[in-house]
Amino acid sequence: MANIAVVLSGCGVFDGSEIHESVLTFLALEENQATYQCFAPDIDQHHVINHINGEEVNEKRNVLIESARIARGEIKPMTALNANDFDGLVFPGGFGAAKNLCDFAFNGKDCQVDPSVLQVAKSFVEMKKPIGFICIAPAMIPLIYNKPCQLTIGNDDDTAQAIEQMGGQHKTCRVDEIVIDETNRVVSTPAYMLANSVSEAASGIRKLIAQLIRMTQ
Amino acid sequence: MANIAVVLSGCGVFDGSEIHESVLTFLALEENQATYQCFAPDIDQHHVINHINGEEVNEKRNVLIESARIARGEIKPMTALNANDFDGLVFPGGFGAAKNLCDFAFNGKDCQVDPSVLQVAKSFVEMKKPIGFICIAPAMIPLIYNKPCQLTIGNDDDTAQAIEQMGGQHKTCRVDEIVIDETNRVVSTPAYMLANSVSEAASGIRKLIAQLIRMTQ
Repeated sequence: MANIAVVLSGCGVFDGSEIHESVLTFLALEENQATYQCFAPDIDQHHVINHINGEEVNEKRNVLIESARIARGEIKPMTALNANDFDGLVFPGGFGAAKNLCDFAFNGKDCQVDPSVLQVAKSFVEMKKPIGFICIAPAMIPLIYNKPCQLTIGNDDDTAQAIEQMGGQHKTCRVDEIVIDETNRVVSTPAYMLANSVSEAASGIRKLIAQLIRMTQ
Repeated sequence: MANIAVVLSGCGVFDGSEIHESVLTFLALEENQATYQCFAPDIDQHHVINHINGEEVNEKRNVLIESARIARGEIKPMTALNANDFDGLVFPGGFGAAKNLCDFAFNGKDCQVDPSVLQVAKSFVEMKKPIGFICIAPAMIPLIYNKPCQLTIGNDDDTAQAIEQMGGQHKTCRVDEIVIDETNRVVSTPAYMLANSVSEAASGIRKLIAQLIRMTQ
């Protein structure tokens, strides 16, 4: 039975983890007889967005504490994540992946990954353990792998171009499909980069998790 | 194609809507070819809970604004919900249903339902449109229907007793089952009153939504 670490980045599509993608990830993991544990960096969110009007509000929120909402309290800080204890890793999307886990949303091709996230992800890569990236999370792949990896963020030209400039090999992908890099053991799916509904997001996430679990075997 | 209103109560199991139950509700609605629109009361949350340690924090958050995180911004205030526009109604659970939509978590059998929620729910009842209640949300049933209704919150004796004292007819129910009151067109399921995992919660919610859609026909 595979044991998978899930990395969250807050709670809400515009400043944290995309909630539907996170829950669909948990559901797909259980449907593939995998167990999972959530983690998130213990850092302030880049900002807090009112999800009705999209405006920034003058509040501070912590990524780990807000992520705990999605995880029903069952979450640990990134620094407690040891790659030895898990068979694979998954990053759900949401702007939090591009604002809190890295700063791709602000700095594009010049972005950097949060040190606690980068260190853990590189451990999984060194151990040849597979990682799944959902939605905008694949923007971190070039910095984690430091070599050409096939990946997708759907079909957005500007985003794809920035990731190619970082060294990624972007493949256009439908919402219900996945891009697999067998050599590097990386799988990605567009989810809400393209999805118009929760069931559309689910279609790609189910395939991504099934592939991730295959790669752990 | 059925069009269903979903009433949220914040964002997070301990002070708002249970996030998994909400997303599983959306997914099940789409899997049953239904469309949906989210609503929430435009009121302050009763309180804000740190979901890691369970402690109250000194913050104010608005139920509608936080619920918007689960709804990806696609949400309207309760006062904009007209029962004429929908075929049925669903209340996902989480403590928010018992702290923000009503005060059952604090006042038990003497609880009251938020006026904007009560008015809308009573409109659906008057039009004989079905309503689904998940997790602890069935605690509102006696006050909404004002007559004996069959319902479940799982198997917690104290909670069931308080609801019986309010006039409800509690039936013990497994996590993967539902309780149907055909006469009153009410369906309920325990979800995270009993569930130990997201897939367990999904099993009952899928049945609840399928039954709700059948009742709209």
